[in-house]
Amino acid sequence: MLNPVDFRTVILAGGSGTRFWPRSRRARAKQVLALDGERSMIQQTVERLTPLAGLDSTWIITNEYLAGEIADQLPGLAADQILQEPVARNTAPACGLAAFVIERQNPDAVLGVFPSDHVIGDEPRFLKALQKAISVASAGENIVVLGIEPARAETGYGYIETGELTRDGSALHVRRFIEKPNQVRAEEFVAAGNYYWNSGMFLWSARTLANAVREHLPETAPLLETIAAAYGTPRFDEVFRALYPKCENISVDYAVLEPRSAKGEHTSHLYCLPAEFSWNDLGSWASLYEYQLETRLRGDAEGNVPEAEGHMAIDAANNYIFSPGKFVALVGVENLVVVDTEDALLIVHRDHSQDVGKIVKELSLTGRSDLI
Amino acid sequence: MLNPVDFRTVILAGGSGTRFWPRSRRARAKQVLALDGERSMIQQTVERLTPLAGLDSTWIITNEYLAGEIADQLPGLAADQILQEPVARNTAPACGLAAFVIERQNPDAVLGVFPSDHVIGDEPRFLKALQKAISVASAGENIVVLGIEPARAETGYGYIETGELTRDGSALHVRRFIEKPNQVRAEEFVAAGNYYWNSGMFLWSARTLANAVREHLPETAPLLETIAAAYGTPRFDEVFRALYPKCENISVDYAVLEPRSAKGEHTSHLYCLPAEFSWNDLGSWASLYEYQLETRLRGDAEGNVPEAEGHMAIDAANNYIFSPGKFVALVGVENLVVVDTEDALLIVHRDHSQDVGKIVKELSLTGRSDLI
Repeated sequence: MLNPVDFRTVILAGGSGTRFWPRSRRARAKQVLALDGERSMIQQTVERLTPLAGLDSTWIITNEYLAGEIADQLPGLAADQILQEPVARNTAPACGLAAFVIERQNPDAVLGVFPSDHVIGDEPRFLKALQKAISVASAGENIVVLGIEPARAETGYGYIETGELTRDGSALHVRRFIEKPNQVRAEEFVAAGNYYWNSGMFLWSARTLANAVREHLPETAPLLETIAAAYGTPRFDEVFRALYPKCENISVDYAVLEPRSAKGEHTSHLYCLPAEFSWNDLGSWASLYEYQLETRLRGDAEGNVPEAEGHMAIDAANNYIFSPGKFVALVGVENLVVVDTEDALLIVHRDHSQDVGKIVKELSLTGRSDLI
Repeated sequence: MLNPVDFRTVILAGGSGTRFWPRSRRARAKQVLALDGERSMIQQTVERLTPLAGLDSTWIITNEYLAGEIADQLPGLAADQILQEPVARNTAPACGLAAFVIERQNPDAVLGVFPSDHVIGDEPRFLKALQKAISVASAGENIVVLGIEPARAETGYGYIETGELTRDGSALHVRRFIEKPNQVRAEEFVAAGNYYWNSGMFLWSARTLANAVREHLPETAPLLETIAAAYGTPRFDEVFRALYPKCENISVDYAVLEPRSAKGEHTSHLYCLPAEFSWNDLGSWASLYEYQLETRLRGDAEGNVPEAEGHMAIDAANNYIFSPGKFVALVGVENLVVVDTEDALLIVHRDHSQDVGKIVKELSLTGRSDLI
């Protein structure tokens, strides 16, 4: 019998809190909000993974604004397993740092990187897929990405072009990673059938990721290794603060995965595992509305989704209203998103909900940082 | 030199608080709200009249829900000058009671009846018109109504058809009072040029009104005279409560003015004084929006009127937002009325703002009297 795999999770939680403004703020980003139920996104992410990785095998990488709230929401997590980036440097340094820290503990450990701002349905299926991914990732230099079958020609996501099935049929070879496409290409991808959305969930051994960072980010790797060496010592915070800002600001996809895919389908050791669980990135108020309506979490017969203390609709349809504790009355209105918080009220047409970030930007420029 | 006229004001303030829901409630009707500035409608009404009638010449007729708030807002007013109707009986019994009370003090006093839910601009012009009206009303059996030149073919108001000018040119003879017309008739009235909106502001001597009530409401008049006889005594409340519910539920227009107009233009002693001041009945959220925009009380270049602590509009125009203390962000929305209160949030298309009353009715039927 083989030794069981030492599985560690690295949860990326560095949100800026703009898409769900005014509910989300810098110190109250999407990850710490309970957008689809009782538990926050980060709580759900951690709890979903605990059957395979206990809290002592869980690391969270976040920023100074969210760290306190995350610690409060996950009281079982040791303080030094919440890494607080002194500055944002995208995903490559974050994943690299985790790899170097864990490599020092066990280079054969399989490290799974997970975003903390997606909702996943069918948890048993998710865990089954993950077990398969761990198994593939535990062998040699393999890198596994979970791919989502595209439900539409979405231009907001990255795509993975896949090739042949592996010999044992457990995964697909990855041909290449593709940045967010335009509408025409997105439609071609969906029609082709061998393209998947990049879920941002990756698995690899600590050694494999560490070596990949050494190879592709030769200036950043030594900085991260120095920080990793200080991990668990009183000097850690100081070293982290001093060196992390000098790391390259680059995504793990761009820094490690894309160059690796250039090696060719059968030599890159990059694998895509198509997910058979439901997945939603809740990228805007409109997508939260659609998610709540689809999952019948809330909503009346006219497609109004009120998060409120009672509501009434007269000639009103397809509105999303967040106004907890209040009664909401809708008359003669359609396709609105209305979000009512203590100090700010957002009223946006559903088709414009991608523009919410513009408000936050403008608030920042006009000195209203009290609202962001 | 003639004796100065003893002018008394009777202010009708029996609102039910439905049109401006959720801001207005049964105990916080339009009359006690500051819809267009710092002072409430009732405060503005009283203050507008004080140059001609001091607080000791001012009576307010209201209901049990509003009396306390009105007393708080008008601390200079003696408690027994706020008459609290035990039940609503429309305007004829209210005006009649005032007439009988004042007739006992001075039958020659001129009594002006004023609604308390309209805004009036150009106060000097208003006072000038009122002085003229007092002068006409102080002579014999004359009854004067202030008419508003119709700005549009409004179907929500009553109209006054006028005839010839009086010999001294000070007023117009009234031909008839007309209830709310349909659209076609309203347009004819506006085109004709001799029709005015019925402002609800009437002037007459106490004797004239008292006699008119005796003549046209022979069953109600003795009840009101008995109540008036108890005015100022410890028995007043008891008598008021016992007899007022037995009075006819009828408007002063319908009970007194319409029958009087049937006498014919030159014998009815009914006169209309066209007002030269600006007037708005603020009948709905949409009309408050228009009023604020016209008077430039508030509003941005895109026609958004935010009663809020700052606002931002992106591709958004012609919205009225009441959300005091909050920052409001509008994106891609038009022609909305959004009213944010502590326990209720209203979102209504401007064209539907007349339907707000339906919500209050429905709340009442569904046992949510906490919200009305």
